[in-house]
Amino acid sequence: MYTLWIANKNYSSWSLRPWILLKALEIPFHERLSYFEDGKSSHEKFKAFSPSGLVPCLIDGEMTVWDSLAIAEYIAEEYAQVWPSDKIARAWARSTAAEMHSGFAALRQICPMNCSNIIKRDEVTPELQNDIDRIDVLWSEGLTKFGGQWLAGDKFTAVDAFYAPVAFRAHTYGLKFSAGSQGWIDRMLKHPAMIEWVEAAAKEPEIAH
Amino acid sequence: MYTLWIANKNYSSWSLRPWILLKALEIPFHERLSYFEDGKSSHEKFKAFSPSGLVPCLIDGEMTVWDSLAIAEYIAEEYAQVWPSDKIARAWARSTAAEMHSGFAALRQICPMNCSNIIKRDEVTPELQNDIDRIDVLWSEGLTKFGGQWLAGDKFTAVDAFYAPVAFRAHTYGLKFSAGSQGWIDRMLKHPAMIEWVEAAAKEPEIAH
Repeated sequence: MYTLWIANKNYSSWSLRPWILLKALEIPFHERLSYFEDGKSSHEKFKAFSPSGLVPCLIDGEMTVWDSLAIAEYIAEEYAQVWPSDKIARAWARSTAAEMHSGFAALRQICPMNCSNIIKRDEVTPELQNDIDRIDVLWSEGLTKFGGQWLAGDKFTAVDAFYAPVAFRAHTYGLKFSAGSQGWIDRMLKHPAMIEWVEAAAKEPEIAH
Repeated sequence: MYTLWIANKNYSSWSLRPWILLKALEIPFHERLSYFEDGKSSHEKFKAFSPSGLVPCLIDGEMTVWDSLAIAEYIAEEYAQVWPSDKIARAWARSTAAEMHSGFAALRQICPMNCSNIIKRDEVTPELQNDIDRIDVLWSEGLTKFGGQWLAGDKFTAVDAFYAPVAFRAHTYGLKFSAGSQGWIDRMLKHPAMIEWVEAAAKEPEIAH
């Protein structure tokens, strides 16, 4: 069985992605959680299980897979439902997930994931608005083009998992999206696996950032 | 046939990755090049062909794939040689390529790719040294573990393509790597496709950054 190393559910958006993917697809795994070190880098601590010193990290027997997107592709070799079965939807989902993987710096920096709190942002900077607008375009495109409840069709796939942290951020910071996109956010926040994550996050010690 | 949109060969490290992958694997494609706008964002210009406003972007009939890693996975569905055939090597290659895709910010910022020049950096900051050290560990691990000329074995795969810009940066900025890693850099810089890229870059108009 897979072992997935993650960090604090309150804060670790990277950890959430493969965790929610495995949960939503009902793929069994052992969860291992290592908290961030308060006020200093957790790099050395995480190196005990992750070669990059980063989370998430998947262990499968002798195999170590230490990046969220690589984990998705690794799991996809065993479980085809990780990506949409339709070729066009799959290419779209991979492009959209990869765009999140390397981008949206303003959103990450200004609105770090914080599941257990409501935080008021007095100002939406142009860079943050650009990120929100682009995500809104992507979600609207996916929901319209593939016509399902989820971003790339009627099934939850890895592209939903890659944007799961944005659903939490939208709630925490009151970010405004179009009606269709807000519908996806609402469905995500009601997903049993997302509720399970938030309930566990609420029990964690908070860290002063 | 695939069409691959790229930007300036001198500067666009993201463009180099799928370009060198296709060339090294002898997969035919049409190249389309759109220059960065001098002194301003190229986002709007690139939106004419790429939905994210970023390069690279692959067009395959009605299909648009707009991220370097998504392009690698898209091509891999047709050409299995994109990733190593061995499962362990493949998971390693995907993790390593994905780590580049979302990381190494100091290297990107302090040593932007600039194929046609030699640039002296007076100081290697701790952040830059950390990036160099981590890359050296990854390369050494791949070369030792899989025992080939290339990072994940005896064949050029997508993980070599993802680190191709670092070979150019090592040359441009005189970055120091261990002997084994330097051997890989030397092989990369002598690869016919890398030479073809540099020769084309030398003919491009330079941009004042």
